[in-house]
Amino acid sequence: MTSSLIPEGFRPFASRGRFTEKIGPLYYKTDGDSTIYGFLADESHTNGHGMVHGGMLVSFLDETLGQIIWRSLDKQQCATISLTCDFVAGAKPGDWIETRAEISRKGMAVIFVRGELLVRGERIVTADGIWKIIGK
Amino acid sequence: MTSSLIPEGFRPFASRGRFTEKIGPLYYKTDGDSTIYGFLADESHTNGHGMVHGGMLVSFLDETLGQIIWRSLDKQQCATISLTCDFVAGAKPGDWIETRAEISRKGMAVIFVRGELLVRGERIVTADGIWKIIGK
Repeated sequence: MTSSLIPEGFRPFASRGRFTEKIGPLYYKTDGDSTIYGFLADESHTNGHGMVHGGMLVSFLDETLGQIIWRSLDKQQCATISLTCDFVAGAKPGDWIETRAEISRKGMAVIFVRGELLVRGERIVTADGIWKIIGK
Repeated sequence: MTSSLIPEGFRPFASRGRFTEKIGPLYYKTDGDSTIYGFLADESHTNGHGMVHGGMLVSFLDETLGQIIWRSLDKQQCATISLTCDFVAGAKPGDWIETRAEISRKGMAVIFVRGELLVRGERIVTADGIWKIIGK
């Protein structure tokens, strides 16, 4: 992995658990009030077809949507309760993959979010998720 | 990881790509015509709360549902096009996690499957997925 393949301004994010270390490095970049997340797909993320494994794509989405929600909740702990992903295109080693997300609704106990993964501006995964604030 | 924690008859499955090696070992056991899949959650699978990361659970489901479908299709290549997961309970390091699945319909090009992950016989994740036969 060559650092020149990481877009300017992105930095690896600190561990939030061992699983993200195992599948990473995963990156973030602050851009005004928002945070953009990305990772560089490599051979270690591939399935038997040589494409990025769906599990890796969902893992990255789950982690980064969770971080976006956590930030929007002033860092209250929350957990995924439902996640639906459509795999509309594939990704290959060498692709830089970014998350985009929009929170649809913040309730007292649950948060609804729409997200997507992009490669070179094209959607590869679309997702709808529900997170729950722990203890509410 | 102590091998005595792996239920009798389960063996690690051969690599079907680098990502499953990274997150594994993942196990299988043949039982008559069917195959049962499992893995032993450990510290390397945890999120920031010390629970098994949702991404790990979905990765295992995606991989094992894919293998179940692939076997049912006489090993025609297929790919996930949609996967919906509800996280009804959590899992911890030390838990042995198994996949159960039922194919709802095999069409000419797409296959519908219902699956779940169990710990000690209790559901922790329920899932509905659609796979596509590649080239159809």
